[in-house]
Amino acid sequence: MEILKNYIGGSWIESKEKNTIDIVNPASLDILGKVPFGVKTNEDVQVAVDVASKAYLEWKEVPVMKRVQPLYQLKRLLEENAEDIAKTITEECGKTIGESRGELQRAIENVEVACGTPMLIQSEFSENIAGGIDEFMIRQPLGVCACISPFNFPGMIPFWFLPYAIACGNTFILKPSEKVPLTMMKVFKLIDQLEGLPKGVVNLVHGGKETVDGLLEHKKVKAISFVGSTNVAKYIYSKGAAHGKRVQAQGGAKNPVVILPDADLEMSVKIITDSVYGCAGQRCLAASNVITVGDDGKIKDAIYEAAKARSTGYGLDENVEMGPVINGESRARIENHIAKGVDEGANLLLDGRNLKVSGFESGNFVGPTIIQNPPFNGKTVHTEIFGPVMSLIDLATVDDALEFVNRSNYGNMACLFTSSGANARKFRNQANVGNVGINIGVAAPMAQFPFSGWNDSFFGDLHGQGHHAIEFFTQTKVVIERWPKEWSRKF
Amino acid sequence: MEILKNYIGGSWIESKEKNTIDIVNPASLDILGKVPFGVKTNEDVQVAVDVASKAYLEWKEVPVMKRVQPLYQLKRLLEENAEDIAKTITEECGKTIGESRGELQRAIENVEVACGTPMLIQSEFSENIAGGIDEFMIRQPLGVCACISPFNFPGMIPFWFLPYAIACGNTFILKPSEKVPLTMMKVFKLIDQLEGLPKGVVNLVHGGKETVDGLLEHKKVKAISFVGSTNVAKYIYSKGAAHGKRVQAQGGAKNPVVILPDADLEMSVKIITDSVYGCAGQRCLAASNVITVGDDGKIKDAIYEAAKARSTGYGLDENVEMGPVINGESRARIENHIAKGVDEGANLLLDGRNLKVSGFESGNFVGPTIIQNPPFNGKTVHTEIFGPVMSLIDLATVDDALEFVNRSNYGNMACLFTSSGANARKFRNQANVGNVGINIGVAAPMAQFPFSGWNDSFFGDLHGQGHHAIEFFTQTKVVIERWPKEWSRKF
Amino acid sequence: MEILKNYIGGSWIESKEKNTIDIVNPASLDILGKVPFGVKTNEDVQVAVDVASKAYLEWKEVPVMKRVQPLYQLKRLLEENAEDIAKTITEECGKTIGESRGELQRAIENVEVACGTPMLIQSEFSENIAGGIDEFMIRQPLGVCACISPFNFPGMIPFWFLPYAIACGNTFILKPSEKVPLTMMKVFKLIDQLEGLPKGVVNLVHGGKETVDGLLEHKKVKAISFVGSTNVAKYIYSKGAAHGKRVQAQGGAKNPVVILPDADLEMSVKIITDSVYGCAGQRCLAASNVITVGDDGKIKDAIYEAAKARSTGYGLDENVEMGPVINGESRARIENHIAKGVDEGANLLLDGRNLKVSGFESGNFVGPTIIQNPPFNGKTVHTEIFGPVMSLIDLATVDDALEFVNRSNYGNMACLFTSSGANARKFRNQANVGNVGINIGVAAPMAQFPFSGWNDSFFGDLHGQGHHAIEFFTQTKVVIERWPKEWSRKF
Amino acid sequence: MEILKNYIGGSWIESKEKNTIDIVNPASLDILGKVPFGVKTNEDVQVAVDVASKAYLEWKEVPVMKRVQPLYQLKRLLEENAEDIAKTITEECGKTIGESRGELQRAIENVEVACGTPMLIQSEFSENIAGGIDEFMIRQPLGVCACISPFNFPGMIPFWFLPYAIACGNTFILKPSEKVPLTMMKVFKLIDQLEGLPKGVVNLVHGGKETVDGLLEHKKVKAISFVGSTNVAKYIYSKGAAHGKRVQAQGGAKNPVVILPDADLEMSVKIITDSVYGCAGQRCLAASNVITVGDDGKIKDAIYEAAKARSTGYGLDENVEMGPVINGESRARIENHIAKGVDEGANLLLDGRNLKVSGFESGNFVGPTIIQNPPFNGKTVHTEIFGPVMSLIDLATVDDALEFVNRSNYGNMACLFTSSGANARKFRNQANVGNVGINIGVAAPMAQFPFSGWNDSFFGDLHGQGHHAIEFFTQTKVVIERWPKEWSRKF
Repeated sequence: MEILKNYIGGSWIESKEKNTIDIVNPASLDILGKVPFGVKTNEDVQVAVDVASKAYLEWKEVPVMKRVQPLYQLKRLLEENAEDIAKTITEECGKTIGESRGELQRAIENVEVACGTPMLIQSEFSENIAGGIDEFMIRQPLGVCACISPFNFPGMIPFWFLPYAIACGNTFILKPSEKVPLTMMKVFKLIDQLEGLPKGVVNLVHGGKETVDGLLEHKKVKAISFVGSTNVAKYIYSKGAAHGKRVQAQGGAKNPVVILPDADLEMSVKIITDSVYGCAGQRCLAASNVITVGDDGKIKDAIYEAAKARSTGYGLDENVEMGPVINGESRARIENHIAKGVDEGANLLLDGRNLKVSGFESGNFVGPTIIQNPPFNGKTVHTEIFGPVMSLIDLATVDDALEFVNRSNYGNMACLFTSSGANARKFRNQANVGNVGINIGVAAPMAQFPFSGWNDSFFGDLHGQGHHAIEFFTQTKVVIERWPKEWSRKF
Repeated sequence: MEILKNYIGGSWIESKEKNTIDIVNPASLDILGKVPFGVKTNEDVQVAVDVASKAYLEWKEVPVMKRVQPLYQLKRLLEENAEDIAKTITEECGKTIGESRGELQRAIENVEVACGTPMLIQSEFSENIAGGIDEFMIRQPLGVCACISPFNFPGMIPFWFLPYAIACGNTFILKPSEKVPLTMMKVFKLIDQLEGLPKGVVNLVHGGKETVDGLLEHKKVKAISFVGSTNVAKYIYSKGAAHGKRVQAQGGAKNPVVILPDADLEMSVKIITDSVYGCAGQRCLAASNVITVGDDGKIKDAIYEAAKARSTGYGLDENVEMGPVINGESRARIENHIAKGVDEGANLLLDGRNLKVSGFESGNFVGPTIIQNPPFNGKTVHTEIFGPVMSLIDLATVDDALEFVNRSNYGNMACLFTSSGANARKFRNQANVGNVGINIGVAAPMAQFPFSGWNDSFFGDLHGQGHHAIEFFTQTKVVIERWPKEWSRKF
Repeated sequence: MEILKNYIGGSWIESKEKNTIDIVNPASLDILGKVPFGVKTNEDVQVAVDVASKAYLEWKEVPVMKRVQPLYQLKRLLEENAEDIAKTITEECGKTIGESRGELQRAIENVEVACGTPMLIQSEFSENIAGGIDEFMIRQPLGVCACISPFNFPGMIPFWFLPYAIACGNTFILKPSEKVPLTMMKVFKLIDQLEGLPKGVVNLVHGGKETVDGLLEHKKVKAISFVGSTNVAKYIYSKGAAHGKRVQAQGGAKNPVVILPDADLEMSVKIITDSVYGCAGQRCLAASNVITVGDDGKIKDAIYEAAKARSTGYGLDENVEMGPVINGESRARIENHIAKGVDEGANLLLDGRNLKVSGFESGNFVGPTIIQNPPFNGKTVHTEIFGPVMSLIDLATVDDALEFVNRSNYGNMACLFTSSGANARKFRNQANVGNVGINIGVAAPMAQFPFSGWNDSFFGDLHGQGHHAIEFFTQTKVVIERWPKEWSRKF
Repeated sequence: MEILKNYIGGSWIESKEKNTIDIVNPASLDILGKVPFGVKTNEDVQVAVDVASKAYLEWKEVPVMKRVQPLYQLKRLLEENAEDIAKTITEECGKTIGESRGELQRAIENVEVACGTPMLIQSEFSENIAGGIDEFMIRQPLGVCACISPFNFPGMIPFWFLPYAIACGNTFILKPSEKVPLTMMKVFKLIDQLEGLPKGVVNLVHGGKETVDGLLEHKKVKAISFVGSTNVAKYIYSKGAAHGKRVQAQGGAKNPVVILPDADLEMSVKIITDSVYGCAGQRCLAASNVITVGDDGKIKDAIYEAAKARSTGYGLDENVEMGPVINGESRARIENHIAKGVDEGANLLLDGRNLKVSGFESGNFVGPTIIQNPPFNGKTVHTEIFGPVMSLIDLATVDDALEFVNRSNYGNMACLFTSSGANARKFRNQANVGNVGINIGVAAPMAQFPFSGWNDSFFGDLHGQGHHAIEFFTQTKVVIERWPKEWSRKF
């Protein structure tokens, strides 16, 4: 079984660490590869940072119009290899092949936006702020930047950062999740082919906590981009700041969606169940608290039917609508949360536990689950379950729903389903979250916009994607120049 | 000999006009093809506008992220076919193959910037300008837009407009110069291959003044982009405005460059002669009035030597440094201007008239010419010669030079050669031109910036390229929405 | 009776023209003053342009942060003198005192936005576009700019242009409407007090067509801002362009508003009648075609009641809801349009002709009028009446309403009244107008946004207010600087 | 002697803490007042945060155009009271009255830029990202924001944050330096007069570390703006991040200026000594390492003469050019640093120790000091002395100078004096600092630009002033709305 190599300085290099953990297909439990894991991965980090630091000196001098040329190539290579990469995503991460394709499309869109960096990196010039004095700003790169990415979107999340970072003149080290490192191995084989990208500009190191700490502690790593759970995000933000770095750390969520009686029932139910059960609920923009307002049971019934009808199975089967969760530990945690919901007094409207998928009997499957009316002060409505589990709650008014939304510690997303312009406006104005959907189930900002978590869903101030990414991956330099007119006669 | 077809609605269609004129290689006088020319080309315009109007209804509904996808393909196709297109440019236009390659590179850079339209077309949103009221702006396309392009940059100038226009959701009609239509024929064969570009979005019609007037007069043509001489630019601006259209009309120039004694002599002389004689002087950013300040003869001598040493010949010969002018009429006009300069009392330091190039004896060649000290109130210093003719003038001070620069009716470009920051700052601040070069000979803005002529070098307010192009090819729609809070309870 | 003086070069100067016309209170027909009118006003223009040209040379050198200081003062002076100026507006223009106050508030808001010019005028800097080469843009002023303003908003419309123009470093000549010049006389008395505003930066010339032509034809006037009827706007745009100037010319309108059955009836009816009858219908954003969709008569009845109940009278009476139209000619024209509507076969639901207001019996009053069901192919629905006349039309569907909206030659405004988010979105997306209101009756963009007419409601590309104003009142200068690294060792 | 009160909820309130420390005039050692200092100031923080949290709920709903109205008043009040406030600055902080006036002018300029928030807070709208779907962004306020400001610019630094924070809809708590709280007491008496600013929007709490920690630890404080020494900045950044807040923490500096032989000697020497000795060297943009390149002694001599000639005394004396340092502890520390410089082997060219100013014999005065040729590996060149002490070093080349500049851990400022455009360009491109001056001694960005420290001079990513301030004081909310076309027929 192959042990994954690091990609450092344009070469595939064995880790100093000989200990490994397995990469496991969550549906079949097949072992797909082995990834270095242990104390000595920290040494890999040192090498990678050294290489990236050196590459930086060259790369930052390359004009930005040239720096984006490899990204144009990368867009094309990703498109040409999309099906192959999508298959890998499904194999190691479990989601359906359709979801993997969609994920990759989002990655490509970030490459496209980063291709526009020559415009986006421009900054301001003010002529004649005083006689003979001009003032202007330059956006210059930071140096070595690192990304620590999670298991649930192995193909997309690195692209919220990587293309912008390098287009801005930084060099980059990616640490993929040790659970799903194969997708980026494929992507880096494409990156390896890019013309005009010097060795050492983009690097990949494998590992776990030691790798992370190595990056957080290294003086030459200037910026950390992280996506994961809130607890780890807090750790990353706090430790990164203690080491003087700029940090953007995206955490977890418990996203509410609200359906009003004036919504299109059929469309809303379809979108909401897609949001709750898509990617088996393992996404930071999954809906998990579904709030009906004044429902006479019609919406509840429709959601129940839609959830129940959802087919679960191996993601490479084109007919399957939901894949497994990432591993057995995760499955156990989710099933435990379901049990706790029942203990708290909720009604288990639909129970996805103990699901067996034919041909994949030992797979980490959890079926669509609905916990009805969990108590407001309980764990179920406040805890991120990160699995295909919906809490279903009926409230009396739009204001009650907003109050519910705004009681959460998280703030990633809130969605409303309605036909009313006024309800939509009130909701988007007042929901204390960073991403709002109106008649949308997964309000994931396009690459042109920052992926905007609030509260415990995000630590830092500049997010991934769009203008924020450019601002995060550059530092501003203000220049004030005095060229006295009276000098101009001199020669 | 092939008669060029129009490209309308995704098909190659014969012109209604049977009369033609020849497309002639200006070096060899070989006839390269025949282009429709006459009254009935106006009928072609009617067809093209109809087709483009219909295509518009579909195209404007395509989301902008999809509208730019064909541009990514076009960038690649242009790169892959660059050498072939460059060869065509040289064959029909005369410039050297190196110049043709450079021209095409500038075209591609505009395609790149237009790929970023999804970011550039965004507009402003203001929440809660009053209780319950939001106000925002949308940039929507105009409809059918047309470009009338000149002979001197057959491969580049259409790209100052075309990619932006279609990325913004407009449909487009290009009328290439009847002297050099073959380059765009090649380009349109690539455009014809683009996936995701509906038929009728981009069209090409051949012809002369009748075609132009057809476009100017047609009610459904909403915007005109023109590059050419000042007289025609005035006509286009005036007539386009009289028909209620938005117009951007770029005219001619008589560009001064100033060399100070503190400049790097060797580099400056090389750059300046490249600017004067590059493209045989047929570019709107060619230097033509060369001002030395306090020159003791050293700069003059160096310029003379550099000009004299410049090799003239057939552009496809890689060793040739300057090609012919566009046609015999042009050659005669240029030689006539040289004669007038002498009549005005100037010293003909270097005479490029009556040049014979071996193997191309009947070609339209004019050699590098230097007219020294033409009188300030004469024709030579104020008239755009559009040929390889330098006026060489010595002045006493930087202020004299600036006064000379600012006496021109034109305002395309002014350049300064110096090592002094203060002189550079004063010059860029005070020169009444839209494009300023410091130690630069051809201050052509990159695609990220507007190509900014002033005075008689430009009519209108929004230029080609960059943000200006996006603004020109869209119209702003301001939306004010009141969604009273008190409505939100209703359902 | 006082003959109004021009304000040129910081002094109040008698016109060269001795002929005058009267300024008349449209309610009382009292003569309020006399304004120069005739051929020799053209001579005043020559003087004003000379003065403004000279002042320009000084003013453009003042740093922008200093140039906005007088605007901060002006904001305060306008606030302190608001009641007095509002009274003058009502006296010469006729609108109610409340409307005059609102108008002035909009003027002040434009002064506020223009105070932000130091940020808004910044432009782009790109470092290192090639080795040692930087490229950036400067926005520099144009020179002398002129505004020709209409009678209906004597206090507001000059402020769409004036504060931006001077903040950008231009000098300015205002020609107010000869019907209502007194408001600007008051404003210029305040301008005269501003510290830090050199003489000649802001000027005022009186007169009619000769003054206008003087400005259009003068070579040193670089930009024309116009608001008025479409016919004159076309004249201004065409003539200004023929003289090579940049022009923004706002024309007339025939604005539709659409009420859907799902709208809030009470609020909508109030807003719509305010829109139709506010300022006696004399505003370019007045609703005039009111479209109900599927109305069973309820909306019609409510509109009728609201219109009928509207009190007409002298605007200085705080209880009056509608004042007179501007003059007797206008009144006759409006009454003639009403008669034509009847001739065309429409039902005259409410007839405002022959209205006598007690105490103002000879005033130019027209009462609220409703022409029901004018024919689609008739004059009534397509002609700008510019008086308190509503066409009331019932259509079957939203699509019919949009088709009606988009059949107009104008494109200033369209409004929709609805509670449906989807209808609102479709309407704002598809209405071919530049200003869209949703549950708004007069969709006048705030000063932060361009006042965006389309089609025959606007000629040019850059509008008044906000970013567009800054772009219109500056010209872009692109600077490319090469400072070779190898030079830096030299000294 | 008065004990300063806190300003909370629009009232002047006594601190819970009865312990105080003295506010001392650093020239006369007069006691100017007493400021609460001790553990119970933490209780004041709790009250202030509660009040500010409540005020936030109201204030954020006020439209931004109204939120900036008090800032227009504040600008005027600051101007009208400038002399009085400047006097207070000098009394408690020691700098000269001219420096105090200048400081206040910078404060006012920040108020001006914040007046433009209605434009600056706008964000992006993208229509039709997919059929029927629009996406846009809103910038909404954060909640309660706090500023901890240092002693050296009591009148200016709070204004890098305060006006932006409240214009964006936040409420604000200022903790002024306990050494110089009187200036903000004066300013808050003006703030107290502002119309349209609800109680509780702006608050002031006194104290020391307990106050700071109270703010850092309070869950409802969302953002911390700090300016001070690097050690404390690190503490603030680290602790603020550990509490999940966004933080901008500006630290210390050791700013180099470089003089080339081609500089204007007279002007450069004047500017550089102003930079080193202005504010007695107590500013984060003071030059402290002065590098001559290839100096034959002429520059050294001129600097020596200028430094020596500088008059030191009580800042209220208009003739005095330099005031005292902040307190005796500071004086001792500075004198100790001078002694260490000598110990390290440097030449004490000018010794400012033991200075006695007549009439202010016990004042904290240190005279202009020059330490020549301190060793590169010593403390003197790397330690922030924060007093009127120049290190004077001669190097051989521009590259040596850049290498020296870039060896520092800090990165606040670097300046170059030259007449060469190429040297200027190279320096601004390559100096690893956030603020660069060319022929400028104190490269303090205008309010339109971010105050951009790098390296150990700044922790965070968004700085004070300009666009960065708006971004820091708002959080982005992305909204995605689907309004299907097919719904629009429904009613």
